[in-house]
Amino acid sequence: MGTQIEPDMNRLQEISSFYRSQLLEDCIPFWLKHSLDHQYGGYLTMLERDGTPYGTGKYIWTQAREAYLFSKLYNVLERNPKWLEASRSGVEFLNKYALDGQGRAYYKVARDGVPIYTRPWQIFAESFVVLAYAEFSKASGKEEYLEQAKKLFWNILDRLESGDLDKFTYVYSPRYTEHAPGMILINTAQELRAVEDDPRHTEAIRKWIQRELYTFAVDEHEVMFERVGPDGRPVLSEPEGRSVTPGHCLESCWFCLREGVYLNDKAIIQRACRIMGWTMRIGWDPEYGGIYNFVDAKGKPPGHQDEGWGEDQDWDAKIFWVHSEALCALLYAYTVTRDEKYFELYQRVHDWSFEHFPDPEYGEWFGYLRRDGSVSQTLKGGVKGFFHMPRAFLNCYLLANGQSL
Amino acid sequence: MGTQIEPDMNRLQEISSFYRSQLLEDCIPFWLKHSLDHQYGGYLTMLERDGTPYGTGKYIWTQAREAYLFSKLYNVLERNPKWLEASRSGVEFLNKYALDGQGRAYYKVARDGVPIYTRPWQIFAESFVVLAYAEFSKASGKEEYLEQAKKLFWNILDRLESGDLDKFTYVYSPRYTEHAPGMILINTAQELRAVEDDPRHTEAIRKWIQRELYTFAVDEHEVMFERVGPDGRPVLSEPEGRSVTPGHCLESCWFCLREGVYLNDKAIIQRACRIMGWTMRIGWDPEYGGIYNFVDAKGKPPGHQDEGWGEDQDWDAKIFWVHSEALCALLYAYTVTRDEKYFELYQRVHDWSFEHFPDPEYGEWFGYLRRDGSVSQTLKGGVKGFFHMPRAFLNCYLLANGQSL
Repeated sequence: MGTQIEPDMNRLQEISSFYRSQLLEDCIPFWLKHSLDHQYGGYLTMLERDGTPYGTGKYIWTQAREAYLFSKLYNVLERNPKWLEASRSGVEFLNKYALDGQGRAYYKVARDGVPIYTRPWQIFAESFVVLAYAEFSKASGKEEYLEQAKKLFWNILDRLESGDLDKFTYVYSPRYTEHAPGMILINTAQELRAVEDDPRHTEAIRKWIQRELYTFAVDEHEVMFERVGPDGRPVLSEPEGRSVTPGHCLESCWFCLREGVYLNDKAIIQRACRIMGWTMRIGWDPEYGGIYNFVDAKGKPPGHQDEGWGEDQDWDAKIFWVHSEALCALLYAYTVTRDEKYFELYQRVHDWSFEHFPDPEYGEWFGYLRRDGSVSQTLKGGVKGFFHMPRAFLNCYLLANGQSL
Repeated sequence: MGTQIEPDMNRLQEISSFYRSQLLEDCIPFWLKHSLDHQYGGYLTMLERDGTPYGTGKYIWTQAREAYLFSKLYNVLERNPKWLEASRSGVEFLNKYALDGQGRAYYKVARDGVPIYTRPWQIFAESFVVLAYAEFSKASGKEEYLEQAKKLFWNILDRLESGDLDKFTYVYSPRYTEHAPGMILINTAQELRAVEDDPRHTEAIRKWIQRELYTFAVDEHEVMFERVGPDGRPVLSEPEGRSVTPGHCLESCWFCLREGVYLNDKAIIQRACRIMGWTMRIGWDPEYGGIYNFVDAKGKPPGHQDEGWGEDQDWDAKIFWVHSEALCALLYAYTVTRDEKYFELYQRVHDWSFEHFPDPEYGEWFGYLRRDGSVSQTLKGGVKGFFHMPRAFLNCYLLANGQSL
């Protein structure tokens, strides 16, 4: 695993303080100030640069993730009653409006909670509701939310494994298995397990980890593919089959690494870190710096979506969540392995990110930069919300502070 | 309508020759050489810069549009048997593999025609099959394809008007009406009518035109919105409601203008041209030139998709089809009104397009440029295919040559 050196405690101390102050002085105040919907509960998350809402629709992903993160901060960083209250507002909104009564969450509701539409072929919205309920249950002591989270979780797993999702996708031929649902399932199970231990979670995770590390990530090509064919092998003839999303790879790797640490399993730890290295090699832009949104494993025109035609334009965009996940993943790899190689990668992403993403005028990060690092979208909200960036900052703080995730 | 001047016949003659040679010497040879699938019929449309395929999947949109355009060229430009043969190959592939037996087309099939998936909530794939069948019927004299095209067309109209599409969208609350389906319906009916006159087509078109020109295009805001609310009014509170897609506006406008010319209806003609002017005002990039992919009518962060969160990165991408439609629309406006204002707009788009899109090494156009005009994707195929650009070139040739569309 390269050179093992003594950790530089001062260096880590500095990193830890840095992220703590980024959270407390920049990120959290912005969202506390601008995103709470005092009229209907929940959050206004479509925010312009200065925090002004530019839309009122409520996406369950974003509602649930903000509710989760405020409870997480309360449970881990500081028992600030404002954060608990912010989380409560989101959780109660979810409890009233997020679910359709059949174990599925809506994808979007109106500001007042009226259902707008759903994406029944996905398990993401529901998974984020599980995170919110479980973490809030821990923060508030309200056990009924943990019960609901558990029920929802097993329902998600059942839908994922029973083929229920396929009923909604109008697919005639088996084609691809995507790695995102498994990745999110791992994280959901881990978070649930952290609130209430249950060996069945560990069992479920074990299976999905295996797929992440050995099915989607392929030694021969030294990449983690976004999807594989029905036989579990890469489909190199097609752009969808060759597509690599570095942000997903790095996020998945740190979920796996976390499991490796939990199980004290060196093989998992090494494998997860190794895939991070592959990802940084293919994902880092050698010309302008920063990490690409998606690339083609064989250098052909990058195609993104399974349903797309390779016409996505934003393959070379530099996006907030990709860099957030990279910071967390690479610092995690370093603190676990003490291999300086990962610290160097972490530092590279750190330097580029903090040079380009922060908004010098209104604080917080811009979400979307062009390849060259110039700002493409000034919004603070949209899909961005209050999740990837503060979660990464919190994790970096904890890791550099010697705590476990 | 501004200054009316005598047309400069030399100038139009030059334009006409220019597009004819672009078609005959650059665009058509590239696609004839690289896209015919001699093994399975139909076309390979996912082509790299030099024509090498980078994927084998067959999208019915692209298959049908290429089949249509080769017949169109045969019917209008020159009775070249290679073009008829190229069209036949696509039409026969469609006839074998495109439809599911219930009047719906698949969205994607494998190279050998095995169905992959469908998008039953859309009418676009079917509409392009209608174009291909009708135009090929005219080119080949095979009446059975015209019969099939007519049957498909009325089925599409029925699905559109009966609410059948909504069964597949998982929408709980009525939200938006999109202008794209109506726009495509107008063009489909016009093309079908051009092959076999039927007053019912004219009736159907009249209704949809009205919506394009007076529901989606709103005087108060001087924009044509991409979608309106259930009450037919713009939804200014939301990014989806404020979104404007200049390429769609210009394409829709020239379909409407064509109807105005067909009906000799000055009100329609003036309205369509006026909306083109609005579109160029909001859609033209004053800094780098070229036309944006999408913008927000009120200057807020641009959000694209109804289902999206305003996170699309490519709002400022400069895309081949947008500029192709603009060339056709603006030259059409000029040749019909002889208002120099439209010629100036046409010329501006022409100069920018031919400075930035052509591939100096392998010919044809790049499909996707960044805001500053640099090449983002080198592919020649993908969604690009053989349709928007050659259709626009053909139309510009015809219009500048004094012919009608």
